Amino acid sequence: MNAPTAIAHLVPEINLRPVPPALIEALQARFGAQCSTALVVREQHGRDESSFEAPPPAAVIFAESTQDVADAVQLASQYEVPVIPFAVGSSLEGHLLAVQGGISIDVNRMNRVLSVNADDLTVTMQPGVTRKQLNEEVKSTGLFFPIDPGADASIGGMAATRASGTNAVRYGTMRENVLALEVVTASGEVIRTGTRAKKSSAGYDLTRLLVGSEGTLGVITEVTVKLYPLPEAISAAICSFPSIEAAVRTTIEVIQLGVPIARVELIDHHTVRMVNAHSKLGLREEPMLLMEFHGSPAGVKEQAETVQEIASEHGGNAFEWATTPEERTRLWAARHNAYFAAIQSRPGCRAISTDTCVPISRLADCLLDSVVEAEASGIPYFLVGHVGDGNFHFGYLLDPNDPQEREVAEDLNHKLVMRALSLEGTCTGEHGVGLHKMGFLVTEAGAGAVDMMRTIKRALDPKNIMNPGKIFTL
Amino acid sequence: MNAPTAIAHLVPEINLRPVPPALIEALQARFGAQCSTALVVREQHGRDESSFEAPPPAAVIFAESTQDVADAVQLASQYEVPVIPFAVGSSLEGHLLAVQGGISIDVNRMNRVLSVNADDLTVTMQPGVTRKQLNEEVKSTGLFFPIDPGADASIGGMAATRASGTNAVRYGTMRENVLALEVVTASGEVIRTGTRAKKSSAGYDLTRLLVGSEGTLGVITEVTVKLYPLPEAISAAICSFPSIEAAVRTTIEVIQLGVPIARVELIDHHTVRMVNAHSKLGLREEPMLLMEFHGSPAGVKEQAETVQEIASEHGGNAFEWATTPEERTRLWAARHNAYFAAIQSRPGCRAISTDTCVPISRLADCLLDSVVEAEASGIPYFLVGHVGDGNFHFGYLLDPNDPQEREVAEDLNHKLVMRALSLEGTCTGEHGVGLHKMGFLVTEAGAGAVDMMRTIKRALDPKNIMNPGKIFTL
Repeated sequence: MNAPTAIAHLVPEINLRPVPPALIEALQARFGAQCSTALVVREQHGRDESSFEAPPPAAVIFAESTQDVADAVQLASQYEVPVIPFAVGSSLEGHLLAVQGGISIDVNRMNRVLSVNADDLTVTMQPGVTRKQLNEEVKSTGLFFPIDPGADASIGGMAATRASGTNAVRYGTMRENVLALEVVTASGEVIRTGTRAKKSSAGYDLTRLLVGSEGTLGVITEVTVKLYPLPEAISAAICSFPSIEAAVRTTIEVIQLGVPIARVELIDHHTVRMVNAHSKLGLREEPMLLMEFHGSPAGVKEQAETVQEIASEHGGNAFEWATTPEERTRLWAARHNAYFAAIQSRPGCRAISTDTCVPISRLADCLLDSVVEAEASGIPYFLVGHVGDGNFHFGYLLDPNDPQEREVAEDLNHKLVMRALSLEGTCTGEHGVGLHKMGFLVTEAGAGAVDMMRTIKRALDPKNIMNPGKIFTL
Repeated sequence: MNAPTAIAHLVPEINLRPVPPALIEALQARFGAQCSTALVVREQHGRDESSFEAPPPAAVIFAESTQDVADAVQLASQYEVPVIPFAVGSSLEGHLLAVQGGISIDVNRMNRVLSVNADDLTVTMQPGVTRKQLNEEVKSTGLFFPIDPGADASIGGMAATRASGTNAVRYGTMRENVLALEVVTASGEVIRTGTRAKKSSAGYDLTRLLVGSEGTLGVITEVTVKLYPLPEAISAAICSFPSIEAAVRTTIEVIQLGVPIARVELIDHHTVRMVNAHSKLGLREEPMLLMEFHGSPAGVKEQAETVQEIASEHGGNAFEWATTPEERTRLWAARHNAYFAAIQSRPGCRAISTDTCVPISRLADCLLDSVVEAEASGIPYFLVGHVGDGNFHFGYLLDPNDPQEREVAEDLNHKLVMRALSLEGTCTGEHGVGLHKMGFLVTEAGAGAVDMMRTIKRALDPKNIMNPGKIFTL
């Protein structure tokens, strides 16, 4: 960690760059009905799940092909106008806001799975394919794609934010699972990175540079990812604990022992209550771990026994098993809907979600003190975590009309991030930097590393048109 | 794959830049006995395991700290003189050759393991630590580091070339296993990338950009990697096959079935003969798979039974088990020494090693035709492969005094690479581009992607002093 900096921006800096009417005319001439300047369309494309607000983009292009994206970027480049890629709008950190104006490139119509290579465990698709759609389309092959952020996000967006989710503890994140990309660069050129080979030492790892670059280096127009054989056996279990600490200590031991657990999610008692209300589940309102085991029948049994033993030592109750696929799906749907369940628990609220991730040995230190602080604040919150990865999310549920609540929540987040960084962790495990964590990034990575990022950005996007104003200031 | 280009360079382009005496004097003043200009020292630092030759560097700095590296780079930058990092010299593609002159920075004295975090399964070390040394030092924790190129390479060098080896099929490559780096940039600044957290979405993935950059973007001065619990059970087996095709088809089915095999190495009958002669093993001189299974005792048994069943369907013999750790070590040492065994089989020869990697479904197509071509050429060769990853190496054993053999071997390699690229593979699975594959890289990645690499290089190293002349021309 580097010297602490000021608290992260509470409101995004708006610095609108001119969008010449000639550009809009050129876009309309090229794209016809695929170009919209209707206010309602623009407004829908000018926000995400963050609590930030900014004026909407000047136009929305509904791209149907790589060529459409390339042409839109070329025109934007000619007029030095920003472009922001858009798919389902589920970003959490203001990634999609047109803080410097510009046009939105909507890739939802680019939603075709292009080739499933079941023999190689790979699939190539357009960026607008969502994770649920992908799993539906590959189901018949006996394979699946494990990365699952809460929302039914697009694969392009997931690549752009380096997303992960509940399965990352076993299967990795988008960092580990994207093999190759097609990208439209800032000049409107189409390039390809990576191949379908499982590994390569062929030059700079442009794929990994672009994964997590949040649209600031290019627009992703094609993605190849790894698939995995559906496990022969899957079992899911819930285990309730007398305290969050007991659940966290159980997780730490499971990971340190090298148990190849597929999912291990912490849900605190507040969140269980919200999920019960939203999904009618009747779960015991205590801190719990929601777990899943993948493998051969014998392997799954072995893993579950090991984990039950560790849990018992920490006062965990007997596992409650989700025995049918339907029960399992219902539990995981409830987990994925925790965010929405929480939002509904305080009507009209907006959530600020934290996203720290620390080495597993530091998880208890990082999490427990933050629970004490959150309780003391009086602000309603939820707490869920991909704790097997050392990653967890507090969601502070704020009255948008009460600026003081916002300030208290930002202060809680600030303390949490500083704690995570002092424990050799990161300010964002999976949501990305966007607008919200630009200050934290400098503290975490140091001025030198952020300068290296800036140098790369300036070199690859000299007109600063690719989703400008995100990740770092220039 | 993109439009084919001309055959790769047969000899490196030498383009020596001036090394002003004032720089040598400044280095001697700063480094004293840590700076050597003795010819024998320079010559030792001016070559690697490739068959290329170039004049040696003008001086060698024996760095003992990050500050030493930073000071050496700052002086080199001031005089616009190239710097080439050096550790054990086991590169295979000419990475270490001073084709534009300059100074060598030897990091062998930076060989301390700085912190083992057994609870987090991570370790941080200086770049001169070798893989065997690392495993020796962490042995008492019950953890191990799986990445194992043939040579006892340095961890810094392995990061720089994105190395892998026999365990990559299960544990990944340096791409998946480096968590964080400390790097001296082209201006002599020290930066840190990544954290010890298992995952992060905090800005551009500089760690992955630097891993595999072959010293062209910075000198690695510290590396944090993942460790793994030593498996509860390990078993190793040999299986001989009536043909290479039978061994390859077995491998393909094993991978497609998702068996979590830890190692699966192809060794052809020529190579078994060479290994027998070198390591006195008495193995049956037929194509074979050398395999290893990691897991619980039950899991290992289950995996081995599945693989034996598949092997039998392809005419594979009964597994011969290496039952003791000593036997296992002896087998794997023999595998790792295959390169040297091969070299010794033709006294005075030099080897050109191929390194293609293809999607697993294309492995037979890629490999078998190349075997026919190699046999027809009359040049002695060895063939080994990390076939579970779709990666294999032909080593053509050349009489260095016979330029025609060299030409034939380069032609075989050229055909093989073009075949791999047409099968959606890569020209290099783990050795890197260096001098030898610059032409292939353009064919593989396309001019646009290589231009993006060049743009990054120019931006981060405007004086082109970091190991210039490697990966791509500028």
